[in-house]
Amino acid sequence: MSKNKLRIIPLGGLGEVGKNMMAYEFKGDIIVVDAGIMFPENDMLGVDYIIPDFQYLLDKVNQVRGIIITHGHEDHIGAIQHLVAQIPAPVYATPLTRGLIEAKLLRNDSRAKAQLHTVQAGEKLTLGQFSIEYFHICHSIPDSVGLGITTPAGLVIHMSDFKFDHTPVDGWPTDYAKLAEFSKRGVDLLLSDSTNAERPGWTPSEMVLNAGFDRVFSEAKNRVIVATFASLISRIQQVADAAFKHGRKMAFAGPSMVDNVKIARKMGYLNIADENLIPLEQALNLQDHKVVIMCTGSQGEPSSIVGRLSAGTNRQFDLKPGDTIVLSSHPIPGNEEAISKTINRLLRRGAQVIYDSIAPVHVSGHASQEEQKLLINLVRPKHFLPIHGELRQLTRHAELAREVGVPAENIIIAENGQVVELVGGRIQKGERIPGGYIFVDGESIGDIDPAVMRERGQLARNGIFLIDISVDKYNGRLLHDPEILTRGFVSPDDAELLLPEVRKRVMEVVNGGGLDSEKDIANAVKSYLHQQTKRRPIVLVTLSKT
Amino acid sequence: MSKNKLRIIPLGGLGEVGKNMMAYEFKGDIIVVDAGIMFPENDMLGVDYIIPDFQYLLDKVNQVRGIIITHGHEDHIGAIQHLVAQIPAPVYATPLTRGLIEAKLLRNDSRAKAQLHTVQAGEKLTLGQFSIEYFHICHSIPDSVGLGITTPAGLVIHMSDFKFDHTPVDGWPTDYAKLAEFSKRGVDLLLSDSTNAERPGWTPSEMVLNAGFDRVFSEAKNRVIVATFASLISRIQQVADAAFKHGRKMAFAGPSMVDNVKIARKMGYLNIADENLIPLEQALNLQDHKVVIMCTGSQGEPSSIVGRLSAGTNRQFDLKPGDTIVLSSHPIPGNEEAISKTINRLLRRGAQVIYDSIAPVHVSGHASQEEQKLLINLVRPKHFLPIHGELRQLTRHAELAREVGVPAENIIIAENGQVVELVGGRIQKGERIPGGYIFVDGESIGDIDPAVMRERGQLARNGIFLIDISVDKYNGRLLHDPEILTRGFVSPDDAELLLPEVRKRVMEVVNGGGLDSEKDIANAVKSYLHQQTKRRPIVLVTLSKT
Repeated sequence: MSKNKLRIIPLGGLGEVGKNMMAYEFKGDIIVVDAGIMFPENDMLGVDYIIPDFQYLLDKVNQVRGIIITHGHEDHIGAIQHLVAQIPAPVYATPLTRGLIEAKLLRNDSRAKAQLHTVQAGEKLTLGQFSIEYFHICHSIPDSVGLGITTPAGLVIHMSDFKFDHTPVDGWPTDYAKLAEFSKRGVDLLLSDSTNAERPGWTPSEMVLNAGFDRVFSEAKNRVIVATFASLISRIQQVADAAFKHGRKMAFAGPSMVDNVKIARKMGYLNIADENLIPLEQALNLQDHKVVIMCTGSQGEPSSIVGRLSAGTNRQFDLKPGDTIVLSSHPIPGNEEAISKTINRLLRRGAQVIYDSIAPVHVSGHASQEEQKLLINLVRPKHFLPIHGELRQLTRHAELAREVGVPAENIIIAENGQVVELVGGRIQKGERIPGGYIFVDGESIGDIDPAVMRERGQLARNGIFLIDISVDKYNGRLLHDPEILTRGFVSPDDAELLLPEVRKRVMEVVNGGGLDSEKDIANAVKSYLHQQTKRRPIVLVTLSKT
Repeated sequence: MSKNKLRIIPLGGLGEVGKNMMAYEFKGDIIVVDAGIMFPENDMLGVDYIIPDFQYLLDKVNQVRGIIITHGHEDHIGAIQHLVAQIPAPVYATPLTRGLIEAKLLRNDSRAKAQLHTVQAGEKLTLGQFSIEYFHICHSIPDSVGLGITTPAGLVIHMSDFKFDHTPVDGWPTDYAKLAEFSKRGVDLLLSDSTNAERPGWTPSEMVLNAGFDRVFSEAKNRVIVATFASLISRIQQVADAAFKHGRKMAFAGPSMVDNVKIARKMGYLNIADENLIPLEQALNLQDHKVVIMCTGSQGEPSSIVGRLSAGTNRQFDLKPGDTIVLSSHPIPGNEEAISKTINRLLRRGAQVIYDSIAPVHVSGHASQEEQKLLINLVRPKHFLPIHGELRQLTRHAELAREVGVPAENIIIAENGQVVELVGGRIQKGERIPGGYIFVDGESIGDIDPAVMRERGQLARNGIFLIDISVDKYNGRLLHDPEILTRGFVSPDDAELLLPEVRKRVMEVVNGGGLDSEKDIANAVKSYLHQQTKRRPIVLVTLSKT
């Protein structure tokens, strides 16, 4: 029986399950689905981004038959350069997704390492014992696909980020016929996007934004600046259409957006006539009511263009009072505070700011509860595995599946690292794979381990207190007054007040009963500082004996 | 004309305007409204809480005629011990609010410093040239009031946190008749709560929660633990009513909640029969389906009871699989991520978790747009000043006021520190008062200045790199190899790789061309570390010459 065991492996640490990377393994053949990044949480100090720990794959490099990417968003392609650098397997993607991957690899000088292949929705791919059928699904980027994965263990449907948009921007709805066909064949297991499992109803079509943008442009008297994700290609199309209707030319700011637009236009996924697209420098010299600028920064990132505009530190152009700034996105959980601050700063600088609670300038790209239930009813799977959500969303999604009629014992909630097996027509939990997050900070990858993160947390909360001592190596006496440095502890004036007593205690330890180790001195100082300030800075002692 | 100038002064830093403290000043008389705390934002590292900078009042201590508190929530009373310690003015509050203030002062050993006075809604108070009429308003704590403030400059209505709940838990709706009376007299200026200015419609009555809690208790088979704010007295009543109906006894965990319940019961604001209230130890020995425990931690605070339960570190009792945890609150902006993590941890430990997207277990205590517009229409003020919101909410509230018919030129949006004047029947912006936040961390107040916070931010992002050097004071030669310590920089293994080259560069500087100052060494090391790691840790050098 175990000869026909399919192993499903969501990779990564706590966080959204299988969002950034999953692996399917069947008798010595492995396929990888997606290679994305995660954005750091507020307490992941100093981290630029996070990639899933794929050590499991590195131990079986020769078994990896292919890397399949479902769509071109960062949380699905952002780690591709790290993956292909270590796993020499071919990468398969639809045309737009492939174009975006290519651009990313070029930016990272990793193009040479990747073998890229184009697969169209509707095509079938055979990789080892896996037969993979690509089918079109709607999401907030064109050319997204779901996967029908057949192995001798059964038929699995992998439904990545999706919504059931009946009037998508590109006019290409989800392939319902294919879902029905799978259902007829008999689906052993459905994996489905849980992002909006707590949201009742049906996610509005991207089409509703047309009215929102139309209103923005008819009311704006001066410049309009629209911020969104660089990979939200369909949003860019909608803004372009509304802008041209109102006689505005369009310019893009920021390299990632400029790159993506170039690719999407070249490949026919973005319809912007040459005469409507102008370079940024030219846009800055047009009359204000003749221009729309698109850029990144809808999440309040301080280093993005909108972040810099809000702080008055953008080099190429500055905010003008009367500018209308549209934030066309919803906060990624954890970013609410940063976005709110950015909105306040933009308002303080005299801009009009439009965001989703003010006007319909954003809709979610993910299915809400009624769509999630419809999918389950369309597919009628024997088993259900919610993915793409944290435990709270997975739990809710599992409840929805039960309501729709999937028996409770046929549903598994698994977090990243938990292997799920499809064997003998049943699913079960398998082993747990060690692994977690890999933090990327600056140039180096993976050298920020949890211990370093804990130290950063402690430094952040209470700062550092440093004492430098020199003693005579013959008689153990202090050679000079201890030197004390602090950072992030208390203000220099307040620190000054504590120093005489700290010096005294250090001298006592050193000149006292032969206790002269760094540790004893640090402990004496720690306890005095805590007693005086109720704080626990990191106390470091350097002791030289000469 | 300027003889009859009323100055309105929202105190504090960026953040919700006038939320925590405001002052009204008229010809040498000052009254203070509220004395609350603000919770730190995610980038305010190591801060416990924040109080408004009231230096302005300290410079005029003898003019402060009274401190008026509108209701008993922390963001309105939490800084009272700091204020009364420095300003010996009488404090006026309604009975429950006074009780909660008294308990807080007792906990802080500050009771002796405060002269507390009880004022009932409907009563009038004269303080210097201020005549202040208290009137009842609904909020999520009983005994809340709005203020009608009359001076020779005109009549000002100060509407603190409110909602128009027609079926409040205590059966005491907002005093509409008083609002109508003010309107008839002619209101020169309305200040009103902007918290929910981005939320369309009407905030549901607290009453809708009864059905939600009834369902929780009828479905829960084991223990029920309900987390909310310790000061949400009406919520505690609702949970108590539902629990007793379902045959459960009630216990409270956590000193602030135990204190508040004792006060509210003694004063008749909380109706819990003696036989239904049991000590926590007793509750832990009852059968699971016979008990409800209320505690704090609905915001995911790691040190709260729910936070500790989620981490498995609560001393008095632990979570059991099958426990139902109800989070009866909405995330305070910035806490979304912490709450989400807490929910995930509770689920991981086998609890059922119920929060507002799953069942109606929380409603806002603040008026939504339709209520805000109703208030303006009831009062018909000549001028409008939105308070209790960040700039984004104030801006929206100002728009609502315009829609309702307040002329745009009669509306001022002012942030904290911006004085607004009512003079000659008009409002205008006055001077800006210096001031901002005062950070409270541990025992000490105010010694965490922005410079210390910046250092903590830098430590948090990149850690610290410390080099200790001893040189011969006669020939400038190194006496021993430089000692190097790092914290929060890179993992010890990775640091090891960098050290030989760092040592070499230090030696070069020291033994080289007479450059031997700490600063030169630090710069040489910084530039090497940045080149190697693209990071900028704080580099500290201690140099002893012996």
